[in-house]
Amino acid sequence: MDLKKYILNVKDFPIKGVDFKDVTPLLNDADAFAYVIDQMAEFVKECGANVIVAPEARGFLFASAVAYKSNSRFVLVRKPGKLPREVLDIEYSLEYGTNHQQMHKGDIRPGDKVVIIDDVLATGGTIEAIVKLIEMQDGKVEGVSFLIDLPFLHKDDLLSEYKVQKLIKY
Amino acid sequence: MDLKKYILNVKDFPIKGVDFKDVTPLLNDADAFAYVIDQMAEFVKECGANVIVAPEARGFLFASAVAYKSNSRFVLVRKPGKLPREVLDIEYSLEYGTNHQQMHKGDIRPGDKVVIIDDVLATGGTIEAIVKLIEMQDGKVEGVSFLIDLPFLHKDDLLSEYKVQKLIKY
Repeated sequence: MDLKKYILNVKDFPIKGVDFKDVTPLLNDADAFAYVIDQMAEFVKECGANVIVAPEARGFLFASAVAYKSNSRFVLVRKPGKLPREVLDIEYSLEYGTNHQQMHKGDIRPGDKVVIIDDVLATGGTIEAIVKLIEMQDGKVEGVSFLIDLPFLHKDDLLSEYKVQKLIKY
Repeated sequence: MDLKKYILNVKDFPIKGVDFKDVTPLLNDADAFAYVIDQMAEFVKECGANVIVAPEARGFLFASAVAYKSNSRFVLVRKPGKLPREVLDIEYSLEYGTNHQQMHKGDIRPGDKVVIIDDVLATGGTIEAIVKLIEMQDGKVEGVSFLIDLPFLHKDDLLSEYKVQKLIKY
């Protein structure tokens, strides 16, 4: 299936100079969406994982269905102020300033085998923070799955120590 | 299945005096999550719907899997500044101030049969805004599904003109 047909390039969003990849046409096509979920769930099976971890909000759009299809637990990574109980927090650098990702303490259990799912791999900062949140709770990252890879925004060897699935490349 | 076992009550979140219903333990149990998704997908089938609409971010946690399971299209409702193309916008009142919900123009097509999915029914303001976004594009709301109902926060007859599923009541 030619998934690029279902991704719209929106120029200058959210700021001038950025080409935003809009995944909403893919969600709004039941066959294309099911194709993506089936591919991701097959990857989870190949990784032998039992937990899906995904960041808000667009990671949730795929992770929920993949968790269901692969009979996995579903653990959230959110921005500060969203998770109501005690959290683990990772701060990481952006081009300007810093960002935080948080996970409820105890959501990952020692020995968990995890696949991380997100819509787009850009610089990789978010994913590296999520890996830390998993590993500081003695979970093991077995794989990382992205709908879209933007390889011009990161080094070639980013995440090379993990199994990585990338369904669309630009 | 006693779903209340998987919902944590967190006092004084996000502000003092509010009892927050934390659904993350349910997501983090594969059997409980699958039970909820199966119930919601059965409701979608009973409604004869072909489109799932859900608001960010917690609506996405359930809507993605329900759309997959029920072979439905999946349409997003988001807060301002998140959807990159031309949007329809509904402003509605909160206790203090106003809020906005947006949908990409054209995401709902005339004649679409829609089920709206969200985690919690509280005052109902968000859901009423979503109904308007669907109806202004000539879609038909066939049903509304919530994981949790907080009936002390809304009138008894709220949404009484629609089929409504509520899996947990407090």
